Amino acid sequence: MAANSPEENTKVKAYGWAARDSSGIFSPFKFSRRATGDHDVRVKILYCGICHSDLQYVKNEMGLTSYPLVPGFETVGIATEVGSNVTKVKVGEKVAVGIIVGSCGECNECVNDRDCYCPKVITAYGGTDLDGTPTYGGFSNETVVNENFVFRFPEKLSLAGGAPLLNAGVTVYSPMRYFGLDKPGMHLGVVGLGGLGHIAVKFAKGFGSKVTVISTSPSKKDEAINVLGADVFLVSRDTEQMQAATATLDGIIDTVPVIHPIEPLLWLLKNHSKLVLVGAAMGSFELPINPLALGRRSVASSIGGNIKETQEMLDFAAKHNVTANVEIIPMDYVNTAMERIEKNDVRYRFVIDIGNTLTPPPES
Amino acid sequence: MAANSPEENTKVKAYGWAARDSSGIFSPFKFSRRATGDHDVRVKILYCGICHSDLQYVKNEMGLTSYPLVPGFETVGIATEVGSNVTKVKVGEKVAVGIIVGSCGECNECVNDRDCYCPKVITAYGGTDLDGTPTYGGFSNETVVNENFVFRFPEKLSLAGGAPLLNAGVTVYSPMRYFGLDKPGMHLGVVGLGGLGHIAVKFAKGFGSKVTVISTSPSKKDEAINVLGADVFLVSRDTEQMQAATATLDGIIDTVPVIHPIEPLLWLLKNHSKLVLVGAAMGSFELPINPLALGRRSVASSIGGNIKETQEMLDFAAKHNVTANVEIIPMDYVNTAMERIEKNDVRYRFVIDIGNTLTPPPES
Repeated sequence: MAANSPEENTKVKAYGWAARDSSGIFSPFKFSRRATGDHDVRVKILYCGICHSDLQYVKNEMGLTSYPLVPGFETVGIATEVGSNVTKVKVGEKVAVGIIVGSCGECNECVNDRDCYCPKVITAYGGTDLDGTPTYGGFSNETVVNENFVFRFPEKLSLAGGAPLLNAGVTVYSPMRYFGLDKPGMHLGVVGLGGLGHIAVKFAKGFGSKVTVISTSPSKKDEAINVLGADVFLVSRDTEQMQAATATLDGIIDTVPVIHPIEPLLWLLKNHSKLVLVGAAMGSFELPINPLALGRRSVASSIGGNIKETQEMLDFAAKHNVTANVEIIPMDYVNTAMERIEKNDVRYRFVIDIGNTLTPPPES
Repeated sequence: MAANSPEENTKVKAYGWAARDSSGIFSPFKFSRRATGDHDVRVKILYCGICHSDLQYVKNEMGLTSYPLVPGFETVGIATEVGSNVTKVKVGEKVAVGIIVGSCGECNECVNDRDCYCPKVITAYGGTDLDGTPTYGGFSNETVVNENFVFRFPEKLSLAGGAPLLNAGVTVYSPMRYFGLDKPGMHLGVVGLGGLGHIAVKFAKGFGSKVTVISTSPSKKDEAINVLGADVFLVSRDTEQMQAATATLDGIIDTVPVIHPIEPLLWLLKNHSKLVLVGAAMGSFELPINPLALGRRSVASSIGGNIKETQEMLDFAAKHNVTANVEIIPMDYVNTAMERIEKNDVRYRFVIDIGNTLTPPPES
C-alpha cells in the first residue's frame, strides 16, 4: 500500500500557508518534507520575511507560478536535526535559508561560486527539488535543506531583523561587491527607499561610503537622513536638485521594482561608473546613449546572491550591525500584509513570526 | 594695421575643403593656422579618413555645428616643423592626429590618461582652440598640434590604410581593452560590418579571439569569413540562428550607428558579460531587464580613445598588421563620398588622398 511504501516512509508531515491561485489569497496548507538525509539540515523556522517578489510570484505576474504555492525565501530558525555527514552546523544552532536550495555543483557557474546563475538552480519555492517534488518556502513550520545551502546565522544578529538579509540583503550586497561599489570613501546613490533600498543604505555606510538617497517621495527625507544615516537626499522629480548633483556619484544601486526613467540617474554618475538595477522591474527601460557614451558609464543588473557571498554578507552584517527595519506580523496577517506591500505601505519589511504564530491545521 | 599686428604675424595661411551650411556640401576654403609654437608639431597632411560621424556633424544632426566646418579626425602625414621643446617626433617623421588636439591636463580625467573625457577637451574640428579660434580638421593641407596630441605613426603601417585607425580604430580598440575583451581565447561578437566593425574584427583576431560577426546583411558573410577572418557569421534577423547561438559570447562590440533592437544581442552573451555600444547612434535603446538580471550582464558605451591608448593601438596595429580596408579618393570626390556613406555604400572606409589631390585655391 502506498502509505507504507519506502518513499512515503521518508516523508515528514509539514504545514504552512499557501496561495491556491492567482488571487494570491493565503490559507493554511498541509504538505510533506523529505526526511533528513545524510547531507541535510532540518530547520525549525522562527521567522520569514516577505519580499515584493513574493507578491509578483503569488499573483503569477510572470506566468510561471504553479499552485499551491508556499512562498518565503528569507528564512531563519534553529537546526533541529542534521544528517550524518553534515559538518557546517550543529543541532540547536541558529541557521538561515535563502532563495537557493540546490544547484548542479558542476557547471562553470557552480565551480566559480556563482551558483545562483546555475541553469539547474533550485529555488526555495516554486522550483522542483531533486526528487521531482515542488519546493515549498519559509511560510511553513520547518524545512529540510542540503547543508551547502544552509547558512550559519551570526549569534549577535537579531533573527527577525536579520531574516530579510537572506534575500533583500544579498540582492544589494552582491552587486555592490561584484561591481566594485564597496570601496571606502566612495559616494554611492541608492534609488528607492523600500525593503532593498534601506538595507542598501546600511551596507553602503558599512563599506564606509557617503550615501545619497534618491526617491520620488520628499516625505522620506527625514528618515533617510536621521534614521538610516544617509548623507544626502534627492527628490528625483526635482530637476534643479538633480542637475545640481550631476556627476557626483561613484555608483548607483537602483531598487525600484517598476520601470522608471533612468536617464536622470545616469547623469548623476561620475564618468566610468555604473548604474545597477536590482529592483526586479518587469519590462524594458529606455536607455539613452549619451550619458553612457560621453562618460563611459554602464548599466548592469543582477539577481540575488551566491551562497559564498551570502554567508559573507551575514558575517559582514553582524560586524557592522546591519539589519532590516521590520514590522513583525503573525502568520494570519499575511493577506493584509500582501495588500499593504502592493500599496507600498511598509517600512521597510514584513517579517512573519512563524515560531509563535503558525499553528498546525486541525487533523481531518 | 591689422595685417601687421603680432597676432596676424603668427598666422600661417592654410587651405582645405569646408561645408558652409547644413546642406553639407563641401567646397574649397581658405583659412589660417597658428605658427608652430615651442611645443607644437606642424604636419603636412597626406591622408585623412572620413567617418560616419563627420556626416552627422556636417549636416548638424546634433544641432551643435558652426560653419564653415572643415572635418577630419583621421589625419596622417609628415612632421614638417617642430617647436624648440618638442621631443616626441622629428621633422620628416610620419605622424598622426586624431579626434583630440587639446585637454586641460589638470583634471582627474587628464591626470589618469582619460583625456578624451576631460570636460575641456578640444576636438580636432568644431572645437575652440586655446586662442579662441575654431579648430579645423584634416580635410586641409596642414595642421599644427601640440606634441602631446601627436602620435608617432609606425613605419611599417600603410599611411592610407592606417588613417582610419585614428578614430574608427581606437573607438573599438579602447573599449575592447577597457572592458576586458582583449583576452586570448575569448569569443567576441562584432555587430555591424562597416568602418568600425571591420576593424573590430581585425583587432579581435589580433587579441587572439574567436570572432562572430552579427549583421543584418547575409551578403556580408563571405567577406566577413574569407576576407576579414571572422569565425562565425550570424544574420541578426534569423531568429533560429540567433537562438542557436544563445550564451556563446564573452563580449560584444556593437558598431551600428542607428538605434536597433539589443535584446537578441544580450541573449548571445554568456553570463557576466558586456555589450558595448560604440556606433554613436542618436537616441534611446530599449533595454530589457531580463537578460541583464538573469545573467548579470551589462550594457556600456564609450567614445573615441585616449591619447596614451591611441599610441598603444597604433603600435599594436603595426605589430598585428591591422589596417582598414579603404577606398582612396581625391579631395574633390568628397561630396559624392558623403552621399555614398549615407547609403552605407563603402567597404569600409573612404580615405582622402590629401597629399596628391588637394590643390591650393586660386589667389584672389
